[in-house]
Amino acid sequence: MMNRKIIAIVGTGLIGGSLALRLHEKKLASKIIGVESDPLHAKKAMEMELVDEILPLEAAISVSDVIILSVPVDAIIQLLPLVLNRVNRQIVTDVGSTKWHAIQTVKDHPGRGRYVPAHPMWGTEYSGPEAVVKDAFENKAVVMCNKEESDEDAWQWVHDMYKKIGMHIVEMDARSHDLHAAYVSHISHITSFALANTVLQKEKEEKAIFELASAGFESTVRLAKSNPQMWAPIFLQNKNYILDVLDEHLVQLNRFREAIENENEAMLHQLISEANLIKKIIR
Amino acid sequence: MMNRKIIAIVGTGLIGGSLALRLHEKKLASKIIGVESDPLHAKKAMEMELVDEILPLEAAISVSDVIILSVPVDAIIQLLPLVLNRVNRQIVTDVGSTKWHAIQTVKDHPGRGRYVPAHPMWGTEYSGPEAVVKDAFENKAVVMCNKEESDEDAWQWVHDMYKKIGMHIVEMDARSHDLHAAYVSHISHITSFALANTVLQKEKEEKAIFELASAGFESTVRLAKSNPQMWAPIFLQNKNYILDVLDEHLVQLNRFREAIENENEAMLHQLISEANLIKKIIR
Repeated sequence: MMNRKIIAIVGTGLIGGSLALRLHEKKLASKIIGVESDPLHAKKAMEMELVDEILPLEAAISVSDVIILSVPVDAIIQLLPLVLNRVNRQIVTDVGSTKWHAIQTVKDHPGRGRYVPAHPMWGTEYSGPEAVVKDAFENKAVVMCNKEESDEDAWQWVHDMYKKIGMHIVEMDARSHDLHAAYVSHISHITSFALANTVLQKEKEEKAIFELASAGFESTVRLAKSNPQMWAPIFLQNKNYILDVLDEHLVQLNRFREAIENENEAMLHQLISEANLIKKIIR
Repeated sequence: MMNRKIIAIVGTGLIGGSLALRLHEKKLASKIIGVESDPLHAKKAMEMELVDEILPLEAAISVSDVIILSVPVDAIIQLLPLVLNRVNRQIVTDVGSTKWHAIQTVKDHPGRGRYVPAHPMWGTEYSGPEAVVKDAFENKAVVMCNKEESDEDAWQWVHDMYKKIGMHIVEMDARSHDLHAAYVSHISHITSFALANTVLQKEKEEKAIFELASAGFESTVRLAKSNPQMWAPIFLQNKNYILDVLDEHLVQLNRFREAIENENEAMLHQLISEANLIKKIIR
């Protein structure tokens, strides 16, 4: 059993709130303090008993053993140096979907060792405290980056915490993380947003979409419900890798376009058969 | 209660096989005859008791009251005139994902009235008899096209059959169907195939995809497992509408590309907020 700690969760939305539920369930926290700039979210997080108390950031840091930043990635790079300025023995970690920028922001900070960069690969298209999910994170991967730059005790606690809530740990340098995240997460969101915009643009008869939309359509546009506050900063921070993947995606779409335009059935069979190889990877 | 009929299902794969289960469950068939060109599928369909008997097409037609074509759309346009040549009192229907081409193929056929063009909007990314699903079609839409061109008794039986298996009927002319199908189904498959190809092309470390792939990625590439025999002919038969939607999709993806390239955060917020409107349509 791990010693229970006082844990501050900065941002009590989908990820922070779901994490709070798991930290409590797994007996990892003696107390959970929420830091929340949105008063409605703060009220909701208290009502739902996701956190024991809401405090301003500085007060929360001074009484906590662990500070978890679960805010959008633009807020993470603003908050991270401020938080590190105020910690000494505490552990600081974040859950951001990009890692290189955050690490870069504090690379020369004297408190860098207290920071453990992590990205639990779990989420839904919904946000806010009301979107929290029981048993979140279970059986998913968490990427932890640049091990050698963190103090051993801090790294170990975050590692053990994620193990305890059922995740498997993947260690990776920050650039590799951002590259892979562009492939397996960020591009899916862009294609889904763009697909939603395509259909909303072309299909003025909303009733027809509503009546006819199949399970297939729903699964490809599901992510298009995801919120701009979270995703716009991710796309900007991971700009280079995302543009690289997006350009390849445009090439692949144009191969389909060309095969259809030229009524090249053999080429279509080949493109689809290639795509079918995804079966080897995704069950 | 509807009188039970002898029903021939041409193509005992995912759709034909799942339909056979429903026809039996809802007491619509006194006997179900399978017509299946793939001997392994035929064997499997008998073993799984999806059908009572396997017969060649002509023999099946001569002893059946209803013939349901559930084969890829290129095979439908080949078979449909041959089947209509041999029917008199029987009802002929199909389940193809494109409707205009099939109807056009037999528009001057003397037996046109016996044909009821339909598209039950249900499916999965898997195929063959082993992919059949219990309770398939339930609560989904079936599009029925060009009512005035079918004999009333034939139309009514197909209508009542789909109602009985839990579908809601949407009546539409064939061109409208093909247009809407391009928006809410065909484009999703193209983006999913192209996304799979993008990731397979760029991400040579399959282990990384496998370990990191989130639920979001899985939902956007799920359709990429769909088979080429079914989908290549759909893309070709619905070429014009699909190219139209695909071109709009390329425009929308390029709007994201430009906003990211120019680090235009306001534009990204706007594009994502527009996409969020899909919430109004998809629950």
